Amino acid sequence: MNRSTAWSRLAALLGVEHPIIQAPMAGGATTPELVAAASNAGGLGSTGAAYLKPEDIVKHSRRVRELTDRPFAINLFVPPPPPAEVAPDRMLAVLAGYHARLGLAPPQPPTSPMPSFEEQVDAVAESGARVVSFVFGVPPAGVLARLKARGMVLAGTATTVREAKLLEAAGVDFIVTQGSEAGGHRGTFAGPVEKSLVGTMALVPQVADAVGPPVVASGGLMDGRGIRAARALGAAGVQLGTAFLTCPESGIAPVYKAALREAQDDATVVTRAFSGRPARGLANDFTEALSDSPDILPFPLQHAATTPLRAASAARGDPRYMALWAGQAAALSRGLPAAELMRALIEESEREA
Amino acid sequence: MNRSTAWSRLAALLGVEHPIIQAPMAGGATTPELVAAASNAGGLGSTGAAYLKPEDIVKHSRRVRELTDRPFAINLFVPPPPPAEVAPDRMLAVLAGYHARLGLAPPQPPTSPMPSFEEQVDAVAESGARVVSFVFGVPPAGVLARLKARGMVLAGTATTVREAKLLEAAGVDFIVTQGSEAGGHRGTFAGPVEKSLVGTMALVPQVADAVGPPVVASGGLMDGRGIRAARALGAAGVQLGTAFLTCPESGIAPVYKAALREAQDDATVVTRAFSGRPARGLANDFTEALSDSPDILPFPLQHAATTPLRAASAARGDPRYMALWAGQAAALSRGLPAAELMRALIEESEREA
Repeated sequence: MNRSTAWSRLAALLGVEHPIIQAPMAGGATTPELVAAASNAGGLGSTGAAYLKPEDIVKHSRRVRELTDRPFAINLFVPPPPPAEVAPDRMLAVLAGYHARLGLAPPQPPTSPMPSFEEQVDAVAESGARVVSFVFGVPPAGVLARLKARGMVLAGTATTVREAKLLEAAGVDFIVTQGSEAGGHRGTFAGPVEKSLVGTMALVPQVADAVGPPVVASGGLMDGRGIRAARALGAAGVQLGTAFLTCPESGIAPVYKAALREAQDDATVVTRAFSGRPARGLANDFTEALSDSPDILPFPLQHAATTPLRAASAARGDPRYMALWAGQAAALSRGLPAAELMRALIEESEREA
Repeated sequence: MNRSTAWSRLAALLGVEHPIIQAPMAGGATTPELVAAASNAGGLGSTGAAYLKPEDIVKHSRRVRELTDRPFAINLFVPPPPPAEVAPDRMLAVLAGYHARLGLAPPQPPTSPMPSFEEQVDAVAESGARVVSFVFGVPPAGVLARLKARGMVLAGTATTVREAKLLEAAGVDFIVTQGSEAGGHRGTFAGPVEKSLVGTMALVPQVADAVGPPVVASGGLMDGRGIRAARALGAAGVQLGTAFLTCPESGIAPVYKAALREAQDDATVVTRAFSGRPARGLANDFTEALSDSPDILPFPLQHAATTPLRAASAARGDPRYMALWAGQAAALSRGLPAAELMRALIEESEREA
């Protein structure tokens, strides 16, 4: 298929002018204002709803719909099997030192912070979102069927060809490839993360050759250069996360925005230190100290265990103990309002250099 | 600068029609026939000469010049500081098990297999090569000045923005960026390898923004899609290694070529097992067994220590104990004759999709 045709077909499927997706990022970055601005400017805004309670998904989506009548997307984590019983004492002892340093009460044994996935799906089904995307696995067949029956467009996230084929077999409408450059959690679910850090340049053409559904490229894309490159590789659309983190509408802490603007290309690491799942972010005191710790708890318990520390660190404007998720091209962050950024991306991606 | 202008300016600097470089790959892959075919077809062939004795550089170059009157390139390793005294006994004990399995005589204490760098430079200066490229560091100022005085075009290899700036400061004529997707040894020299695995999509635009000399993209490029993508990112030229490994003219073992054609995108690892320096190749029994070994010797002693095993494994057509260097898009290998491959790359890179 002609590249231009693939591009406009995906735009039509998403119901947008340009298949340029503001990536869903769980944890508060994707405010209704950010999502709506991206959609209003002609792309597709996305909410990272994985940590949101069902009632908050409802509230968030209502607010997005007040701010835009354009399509938007919601993203959920495919829940992992419940972790085996774990003994958190050693991790709590590690965290206790940091808590003491910041004057926080001692850390408590963590419990899963994840809302019921089934209830999240209920809320998403009622949200008015046009697109629902998933990470961390193949969504259950019943969930896909149910959302599809409501006319929703469904996407999965792949970090390898193998994962893309599993998602195609499950019947998703398009596949987001997550190159190794990408910030935040790795979507890897069908192999070891160490072997699934495939760069965008290598991943997109191999996935595009291997599967039928349209492929959306993500990982390392920050501007029109990345978007044009992704199209050349065979992508029918693109998804940019880190690029939107420094927008004024993004919900992340100011100290985190400042760190992104100052990041070097070699400043990131893939770490389990904050959540228990491998994710790419700027190295800091906490990732350095815990990088090889055998005491890191499985996801989502490590996420829960580190929540008070991360929150206190952010509140103090101290980047040392926060999760500073970032892709490898964070230094190309621009800090523009989301609508301006989306318009710039559209304009740059269509410019003939 | 306009992208097309940058592309044709680099072609003029290299003295070729198209700034598409067949990557230098040390260890025997880049035969005179491969190098000459790439150059004759309108790109730039390169010899990986790092392990070649000075007299073999002379012989090799003479043969290349018999086969082509077009420009070609030669690549050398910037020598590391001599390794501290090492006790190889534990590694020799590990290798002894493999030697026994293959009926080889017991492994011997290794000595550096590297010819004198100064004498290699002497040979390169007389080789008739138009382009000299380096990996693993900033070439000594005297070496650069001497080769430059002979009218040679000089290049360094960067895996991060920091390394690109160091090479620019040293006065190289162009900079090859090596994205994390690339097969073979990592060129990293100014930071830990773990933090220097920057994907091509993120690396090229950041380096292009940071330095003045033309940037050549490598890492994950296998066909016209990758070349067009690299141009969109700001590259003035491209370098492809893995793509040429399966050419009939390439000097690698048939079993290695077969493995490349069958490789999956998630089949590679970055390992020190074969040479002591991190390099990307297909995972096999040897990389799995030695992945975390504290007994791996520093480069180039590990290379020397594993040479008999690698050679015997290749001679038997057994891929288990060979270094199967490969980029993350090896599965897009085509096995075409080098001239046909180069012509296809040129045609595909200029095609409007």
